[in-house]
Amino acid sequence: MAATATRLDVLGIGNAIVDVLATAEDTFLAARNLPKGAMNLIDAGQADALYAAMGPGLECSGGSAANTIAGVASLGGRAGYVGKVRDDQLGAVFSHDIRALGVEFRTRPATAGAATARCLILVTPDAQRTMQTYLGACVGLTPADIDAEQVAAAEVTYLEGYLWDPPQAKEAFRKAVKIAHEHGRKIALTLSDPFCVDRHRGEFRDLVDNHADIVFANEHEIISLYQARDFDQALQQVRGGRRICALTRSAKGSVVVRGDEVHVIDAAPVDRVVDTTGAGDLYAAGFLHGLTQGEALPRCAEIGGIAAAEIISHVGARPQVALGELLRQRRKS
Amino acid sequence: MAATATRLDVLGIGNAIVDVLATAEDTFLAARNLPKGAMNLIDAGQADALYAAMGPGLECSGGSAANTIAGVASLGGRAGYVGKVRDDQLGAVFSHDIRALGVEFRTRPATAGAATARCLILVTPDAQRTMQTYLGACVGLTPADIDAEQVAAAEVTYLEGYLWDPPQAKEAFRKAVKIAHEHGRKIALTLSDPFCVDRHRGEFRDLVDNHADIVFANEHEIISLYQARDFDQALQQVRGGRRICALTRSAKGSVVVRGDEVHVIDAAPVDRVVDTTGAGDLYAAGFLHGLTQGEALPRCAEIGGIAAAEIISHVGARPQVALGELLRQRRKS
Repeated sequence: MAATATRLDVLGIGNAIVDVLATAEDTFLAARNLPKGAMNLIDAGQADALYAAMGPGLECSGGSAANTIAGVASLGGRAGYVGKVRDDQLGAVFSHDIRALGVEFRTRPATAGAATARCLILVTPDAQRTMQTYLGACVGLTPADIDAEQVAAAEVTYLEGYLWDPPQAKEAFRKAVKIAHEHGRKIALTLSDPFCVDRHRGEFRDLVDNHADIVFANEHEIISLYQARDFDQALQQVRGGRRICALTRSAKGSVVVRGDEVHVIDAAPVDRVVDTTGAGDLYAAGFLHGLTQGEALPRCAEIGGIAAAEIISHVGARPQVALGELLRQRRKS
Repeated sequence: MAATATRLDVLGIGNAIVDVLATAEDTFLAARNLPKGAMNLIDAGQADALYAAMGPGLECSGGSAANTIAGVASLGGRAGYVGKVRDDQLGAVFSHDIRALGVEFRTRPATAGAATARCLILVTPDAQRTMQTYLGACVGLTPADIDAEQVAAAEVTYLEGYLWDPPQAKEAFRKAVKIAHEHGRKIALTLSDPFCVDRHRGEFRDLVDNHADIVFANEHEIISLYQARDFDQALQQVRGGRRICALTRSAKGSVVVRGDEVHVIDAAPVDRVVDTTGAGDLYAAGFLHGLTQGEALPRCAEIGGIAAAEIISHVGARPQVALGELLRQRRKS
């Protein structure tokens, strides 16, 4: 079916989460066997126990795809979001924050059941973040939450791999993929986390090889996906496909692959890395914004790098300045 | 009655509030007639309307005296706090954050009635903060929440002027003053805000002249209290009393007066002022910590300045580093 006019540049679907950020020493992680740098799922009891042991926190809307969508909106893009919160105080915080950026967010909050999801994020002195997520109300996301009109109206529908964790969200995910492709739209996917890839490797391989038009992964995730020896071997697996693969390598920048094209892009400079939470999410935001504005792939990666550099220069995974303005200033200088 | 051993250096009593910080342009304040730099009281409906209009927020425990107590604990002092939250999610956030610092916080949360208090803080590009407070559950603080044993065990009981706003908190305040003095303890008071002084000038004059042992005020507040022409005239009114007055003057540092002693202390240097929220609160923290450690007045003011400098270098009114450690590093260098 031929593509008609779009209302949204990017529609994100993900776990709607409020982040609770606190600083912690490496010994705190070690004493609790928390795998540094990763995202781990915990239940309500574990969340309460960890929270009680943590230092004072700072609450801020989060969620991987939601951070990306906040970034797209901050860059000036037309953005929408689908995710499930509870009708509680933290759910109201999440809903406010995403709508305050002009994002179309219509998903009905749950009126019963588990509380709004929380991600307890421990930021160590090396600026690495270790995440423990209580999915809470996110487990209530079902195919009924996918609005066919909204997906059909979005140039790109962006899905996070974390959606494979709650029981019914993957069905919502599959429904969105089907609708998008029926309407000639694109599907973007982030692999989210190497442990998440481990949990769902078979299905993720199928998604990456057969369904996604744009794939985001960091080096650990892409190595895990193909059970490769190293990044170069994973890169060989990725080459030749029709889809775009944007592979992030932290301070080493990113590598973008489409068919036999390979672009290597440097990271944007950062004065001081404070908290790496949201780096990958904001890279995806910049990349997708560039793509939906018709930019060439190297420029998309460059915008991704600029957005990621802003986010790691402060605490929290949502931009503290209007990224569109930041981009304009960069162009002038 | 002679003073016996203490369990706490400083016990703070105040409005227990969660801050919601968002950046805003000056035009946003002007369009809503919000007095820049001040604290204004709003009702639940006004809070909802303002929140809906605000940009994405960042939630962080706040409350003037609570920020001071968090500062005292962060400096290594033995600290306690009394304030009223509701048994809701933001109340749990407030309780967690203050206890995570090792603060003794025993006040029972309200199980019915208004939600935990929120202060909507708009930070303008000049780093000034403009505060709109919905008192919520704070109106439920009564004399029954004052534990005589706890007050008697504290070397200094620190009270915020804002307590004059909710209806019964001033009775709790008076009860605490009486108990403290009966046990040979000290009462410290902050005038909080020039508008707050305007609302309660007669009673504040009586407190400052006849009941407080230590008074904190900024220049606007002390000028308002004595309806003075300027700071120098206000200073003349303050001189000669037996109490200690610590008067803060932003970038000009502070002036400390006791009887005929007058000490002028420079502000601590700050690379970049990001958000002035909590500057006065943290000055009081440093000053009271110095005083309870037996330091001379100029050194107390200096510690206050160091704590204030840390807080204005980032977003939010609670320390992001262990202030005790910061102080030790400063001593070495």
